[in-house]
Amino acid sequence: MSNQKLPSKSQDFFGWYNEVIYQSQLVDESPTRGCVVLRPYGYALWENITRIIDTRFKEKGIENAYFPLLIPESFLKKEAKHVEGFSPELAVVTHAGGKQLEEPYIIRPTSETIIYHMMARWITSWRDLPMQLNQWANVVRWEMRTRPFIRTAEFLWQEGHTAHATREEALAKAKEMLAVYIKFISEELCIPVFSGEKTPKERFAGGEATFTMEGMMPDGKALQMGTSHLLAHSFPAAYGVQFQDKDGQMKSPWCTSWGTTTRMIGAAVMVHGDDSGLVLPPAIAQYQVVIVPIFKTEEEKIVVTAAATAHKQALEATGVRVHIDLRDERPGAKFFHWELRGAPIRLELGPRDVAQHSVMLAPRIVAEGATRKSVVMSGELVGAVHASLKALASLLFTRAKTYRDAQLINAACGSLADFGKTIEEYNGFVKAGWCFERSCEEALVAYKGSIRCILDEVVPDGAQCFCCQKPATHMVLAAKSY
Amino acid sequence: MSNQKLPSKSQDFFGWYNEVIYQSQLVDESPTRGCVVLRPYGYALWENITRIIDTRFKEKGIENAYFPLLIPESFLKKEAKHVEGFSPELAVVTHAGGKQLEEPYIIRPTSETIIYHMMARWITSWRDLPMQLNQWANVVRWEMRTRPFIRTAEFLWQEGHTAHATREEALAKAKEMLAVYIKFISEELCIPVFSGEKTPKERFAGGEATFTMEGMMPDGKALQMGTSHLLAHSFPAAYGVQFQDKDGQMKSPWCTSWGTTTRMIGAAVMVHGDDSGLVLPPAIAQYQVVIVPIFKTEEEKIVVTAAATAHKQALEATGVRVHIDLRDERPGAKFFHWELRGAPIRLELGPRDVAQHSVMLAPRIVAEGATRKSVVMSGELVGAVHASLKALASLLFTRAKTYRDAQLINAACGSLADFGKTIEEYNGFVKAGWCFERSCEEALVAYKGSIRCILDEVVPDGAQCFCCQKPATHMVLAAKSY
Repeated sequence: MSNQKLPSKSQDFFGWYNEVIYQSQLVDESPTRGCVVLRPYGYALWENITRIIDTRFKEKGIENAYFPLLIPESFLKKEAKHVEGFSPELAVVTHAGGKQLEEPYIIRPTSETIIYHMMARWITSWRDLPMQLNQWANVVRWEMRTRPFIRTAEFLWQEGHTAHATREEALAKAKEMLAVYIKFISEELCIPVFSGEKTPKERFAGGEATFTMEGMMPDGKALQMGTSHLLAHSFPAAYGVQFQDKDGQMKSPWCTSWGTTTRMIGAAVMVHGDDSGLVLPPAIAQYQVVIVPIFKTEEEKIVVTAAATAHKQALEATGVRVHIDLRDERPGAKFFHWELRGAPIRLELGPRDVAQHSVMLAPRIVAEGATRKSVVMSGELVGAVHASLKALASLLFTRAKTYRDAQLINAACGSLADFGKTIEEYNGFVKAGWCFERSCEEALVAYKGSIRCILDEVVPDGAQCFCCQKPATHMVLAAKSY
Repeated sequence: MSNQKLPSKSQDFFGWYNEVIYQSQLVDESPTRGCVVLRPYGYALWENITRIIDTRFKEKGIENAYFPLLIPESFLKKEAKHVEGFSPELAVVTHAGGKQLEEPYIIRPTSETIIYHMMARWITSWRDLPMQLNQWANVVRWEMRTRPFIRTAEFLWQEGHTAHATREEALAKAKEMLAVYIKFISEELCIPVFSGEKTPKERFAGGEATFTMEGMMPDGKALQMGTSHLLAHSFPAAYGVQFQDKDGQMKSPWCTSWGTTTRMIGAAVMVHGDDSGLVLPPAIAQYQVVIVPIFKTEEEKIVVTAAATAHKQALEATGVRVHIDLRDERPGAKFFHWELRGAPIRLELGPRDVAQHSVMLAPRIVAEGATRKSVVMSGELVGAVHASLKALASLLFTRAKTYRDAQLINAACGSLADFGKTIEEYNGFVKAGWCFERSCEEALVAYKGSIRCILDEVVPDGAQCFCCQKPATHMVLAAKSY
């Protein structure tokens, strides 16, 4: 539990990541293979993420529901590509209630199969459409190589599932939900992403189109931060979902699914943290402001604590999450503690500050060259805190985008021979032309890279496929990935 | 999906219960044995319950965390009574990632075992205490006889787990959390409960004391609506949880656990519903107010919808959850629909109402003999809705308490021969004296009853044990139960 100096993020990124998430008490190791415990300070991030996203889902007409954890094994086998995609990762319940089960149950790796089974009961007419459901749940995928938040055997996520009368409407919904994610990841997680469609090779098992958001981690690799799918007709067909349209014909609905996970926490840790610890985006931090009272005598403690409490109440009244650190520790130890834990703003408050009606405000980070600490008059504290939180979020985004753009090579006419090493050794992102041939896509494997997404960009005149040098039909983002 | 007339609640209680929960779309049957799907209208009740309770937990210093779903089988065996209590109900994962596991995992039936394992890592000193954790999660208990909400193989719940330096503090916490439940169940669910300690025979497997709340369902049976436990020292000992106290000694902490589940929804349905459908307590209803616009022409529709929207906004600004039913159905069908679904207040709004700046307000139920509908002037609508919601909640509680008290026999000096038939046939609650002997307690089995809890009441002079007729040491509540 004791805090040791963190490894350097730039010199030992994974050593740094592992230390910072344990030392800041976001997670702890668990006795279950490939799973971590989300400790209160880590789970609070997820609570804030879910609260924000859930509100936006509801604004889009999405309703939450809950489906069984255990799915009959036969359900997964109904959609051929789907079972093929997930079968190596399944956890299987073979015994229950002291007996061997006639048919084993699978712990859901995702819930399409049981949700489509239910939709077949609920959807009969065009009047039942669109049906727009979401589930907040745990899922299990028995991954071989795990990393806390990024890939664990059990993880928390949300999975949205919608059914629509037309392909156009479903496609629009898949893109609308992707936009909800992008807004959240950009504005609240403060991480810039590239978004676009996955190639046929990379898309969801059983999907017709998969849209993704790809963030750049500090090692230059891409992290897929959420996906949204237009499902193939094989899905509703396999589960017997049909509706009678206005023209009296029985038709198959067009369906979407979209999900994002606790992985977002890992991304925020990786992208924003520094050698002193976490730097939490204000929107998701458990405490946006931590007040450290400074006092020597019991009398000073009373005065300072009273002032701290008044500040806390004033800030909370405007929606700021505030914590007063009253632990029996020296101020220096508390500063260290909250630097490690990435609290966006620290307020220092001693007897002299109280006498002068002021507070010392220190954001977790400031722009290079700027002064970190500033004296704020008590009457202006609320405004100053809001401005500082906003500035911090903006700084986090700008810093991440500057880093990413510096690692990005635009190679519309380049060839794999030119930039392959960039991907493999330097871990950069490359924007390149592509002819849409799978064989060309697979040439990236030699450099441990892949096409992360097809960019929604105009193909420049003269752009060539990075592999075969034929005229490019698409611009793609190529990178190594998690 | 089509709505058929409900069975009479008084004549066919379980027939009514099953029909009302499916027809109102709270739940649907699932392909997983003993599990239901919580549909959006049912899941919304759970969302409201969790939001309210979670806020109160946090006010008591409780922090949320998340522990793995899968627990190594050996963990459950460390606490002898605990494994004995749960082993017949366990679901076991024997295969994962395409291979047989060396050690099977159990799907958590409750998380004590893994949480104490983690607490052993986190607790070293008195400074780490109290540790006050809660988890919102799904659990699996392979129950043989299931009933939606009341007892299902998988269910959603919260489980709180705290560790304290002293027995007194832990006991106080167990009672404090019970009080949080009682307040919620009384004030928000509008259900009166008896609370008290379980007998040694009925207590939690591995606990030293179990506190419970028992509500009376319309068939006169008791439903345990939540429990809070002081755990025996065998628990922390089995998992190696120790702390160094201020005196330098290594000691075992005193621990509590407390939980409540989606069962609360079943109780609210059972207690408050009537032959027309659900009657939802306002605090948990997805929509507290449903506005049914009434119009014939397109022009009227525009006017009425605009007025409905203005009312909705005014109500929402004061925290009321409002829905405007714009479906292409006749008003009568909409009235029927929202009666069945138990919306606390219906507002009817036609062109004449709009012209007269008024609204017709109809609560789902009113006191016997009272007029149901009333005309409210638009300017007074917000106040009238709040008053009506409050009156409805009060009426629900009073009605439930009146029913319960009428079914309650006070038999401080009675004998089992006198009231046994009451329990068995009439399904009444009996308050009786008890000598604390297990053999006497077991005599209730002949009448299919049990001691639901030891009441925190003074034993009246001359009170006798219901069985052996020796002087009573405790007053207990005896009843049949779910």
